[in-house]
Amino acid sequence: MTTMTLNDCLAYLKENDGYLLLTHIRPDGDTLGSAAALCHILRRLGKTAWLYDNPQITATYSLFMDPYLAPADFVPEHIVAVDLASENLFPEGFPGNGQIDLCIDHHPTNAQYARRLLCDPDKASCGEIILELAKLAFGTPDKTTADLLYIAVSTDCGCFVYANTRADTHRAAAELIDAGAEYKRLNKLLFRTFSYSRLMLEGMIYTGMKRYGEKDCVTVATITLEMMEKSGATEDDCDDLASLAGRVAGNRVAVTIRELEPGLCKVSLRSGEDFDSAAICALHGGGGHKMAAGCTVHSDPDETRDTIVWDILEAL
Amino acid sequence: MTTMTLNDCLAYLKENDGYLLLTHIRPDGDTLGSAAALCHILRRLGKTAWLYDNPQITATYSLFMDPYLAPADFVPEHIVAVDLASENLFPEGFPGNGQIDLCIDHHPTNAQYARRLLCDPDKASCGEIILELAKLAFGTPDKTTADLLYIAVSTDCGCFVYANTRADTHRAAAELIDAGAEYKRLNKLLFRTFSYSRLMLEGMIYTGMKRYGEKDCVTVATITLEMMEKSGATEDDCDDLASLAGRVAGNRVAVTIRELEPGLCKVSLRSGEDFDSAAICALHGGGGHKMAAGCTVHSDPDETRDTIVWDILEAL
Repeated sequence: MTTMTLNDCLAYLKENDGYLLLTHIRPDGDTLGSAAALCHILRRLGKTAWLYDNPQITATYSLFMDPYLAPADFVPEHIVAVDLASENLFPEGFPGNGQIDLCIDHHPTNAQYARRLLCDPDKASCGEIILELAKLAFGTPDKTTADLLYIAVSTDCGCFVYANTRADTHRAAAELIDAGAEYKRLNKLLFRTFSYSRLMLEGMIYTGMKRYGEKDCVTVATITLEMMEKSGATEDDCDDLASLAGRVAGNRVAVTIRELEPGLCKVSLRSGEDFDSAAICALHGGGGHKMAAGCTVHSDPDETRDTIVWDILEAL
Repeated sequence: MTTMTLNDCLAYLKENDGYLLLTHIRPDGDTLGSAAALCHILRRLGKTAWLYDNPQITATYSLFMDPYLAPADFVPEHIVAVDLASENLFPEGFPGNGQIDLCIDHHPTNAQYARRLLCDPDKASCGEIILELAKLAFGTPDKTTADLLYIAVSTDCGCFVYANTRADTHRAAAELIDAGAEYKRLNKLLFRTFSYSRLMLEGMIYTGMKRYGEKDCVTVATITLEMMEKSGATEDDCDDLASLAGRVAGNRVAVTIRELEPGLCKVSLRSGEDFDSAAICALHGGGGHKMAAGCTVHSDPDETRDTIVWDILEAL
């Protein structure tokens, strides 16, 4: 494995041709926006480049990815993985047999599975690394690159609200806006538009929330199979549901109970630093981190709630 | 009325003393964060400075404003209005009789009611003007100034998601983060924490949403008196409710019906540029802009919905 600088990486990309770019399983805006921007940059450099046709791309992102998806008969010469930290995150249908020529990533946990690695863990998003590449290649990014990288940068930090946002994330956004990114349209589409089913499901979750303990500091949100059916929600609509209970002012421990099948529930706990979520989940054969943990309980949602809330109130 | 530059303004503030800073009616994060930051800056310059005790400050902002609120017996020498575009926006209880010595604002519609005016309509928030003042006075803002201005800058653009966000807004955020603003804590508090009542009410609105027309392009959200009572929501919980219906993917016209009293409803319309919301509201004696308009209908919520939806489907 060779560690690369930005300059090494650009030189390698200029020397070779016939690129297939990989995005990770359950692709998010960062892997897709970064890979599509890199694809566009390579084409501007006169190269043949395509994105692996990741079967899990959701409808919103498809709008932007279609011009880049590889035709079925494309035979790549070089494979580049983008925002892809380890081989068990390869996209569905891609044979994981170690032939990755280059990986561009920002995860500190990168498993160094590729022959060449450009990794900058100081970046909040992989998109910020691709932005540096674009600037190195052309001075400033063109409008298409700016749009795709704005998708990457903004989605990875929830539009600059998540704790991974940094001063440099804002600086990257400013550069992309200056380069012509249609950020107003993208913000509306990515952060202020939801499927009807998602809003119905979210509405049912909010109206069904229950609180327990002193000062109502434990909040429980439940998602039953009946709610999924009634709202018409699919897995695409279930992004980040475990964060909803934690939105309540004064919350210390947020519990999300999802009925997976009759008699089986998945439990997610989120807490501040002053409560050990992992210890509660360990009681039920689960685990995780102090502030975010999970377990599976063989019971219906009501009984699961009673059990977990009892454990939490004991621990508080 | 004298128009001031940043330098004029700082010189004026340094020459005088005994400042009372005014925030606007229904104070938001920009007027409060900007005024409190200016108050802190003036104190660093050795001046006596206090904020007018705006009776409408909500609980979240009170956390930050308490050290700056003027005692009842404070007699000001100079009055400075911050983010306050016209005299009819004076805070509750403040006698509006034209004695404003200085106004610092970013609204292009500023009514020029003050003796001196520093106005920069190119800024997305008033906080960005106060940031320039802080930099002129001290080089870089200190941590307290940075926290207060991060509140101002971030809230005025909905955490960088609204259409008023600009490249410079991101640059201001980057400077404030570099200066020590606790943006992670502030983001969680300002953008990811909601009262239980607000979430209950939002849940009821989502589950009660109805859609009409071709491709379900008209969305109607209703807020009844019963929903307000059942959720325990107060006016503090009703911020931006008229935007919820517009979040549905594929929406062209978003209607929000709020029952004000039995038999009286307020209707808010939001649309894209391809539909004239004001024309619909004009049919009922209301008005507004093409993309955002309102009217009042003497009827119950169900009848109001039927009437307005009929008008919209006719117009589409």
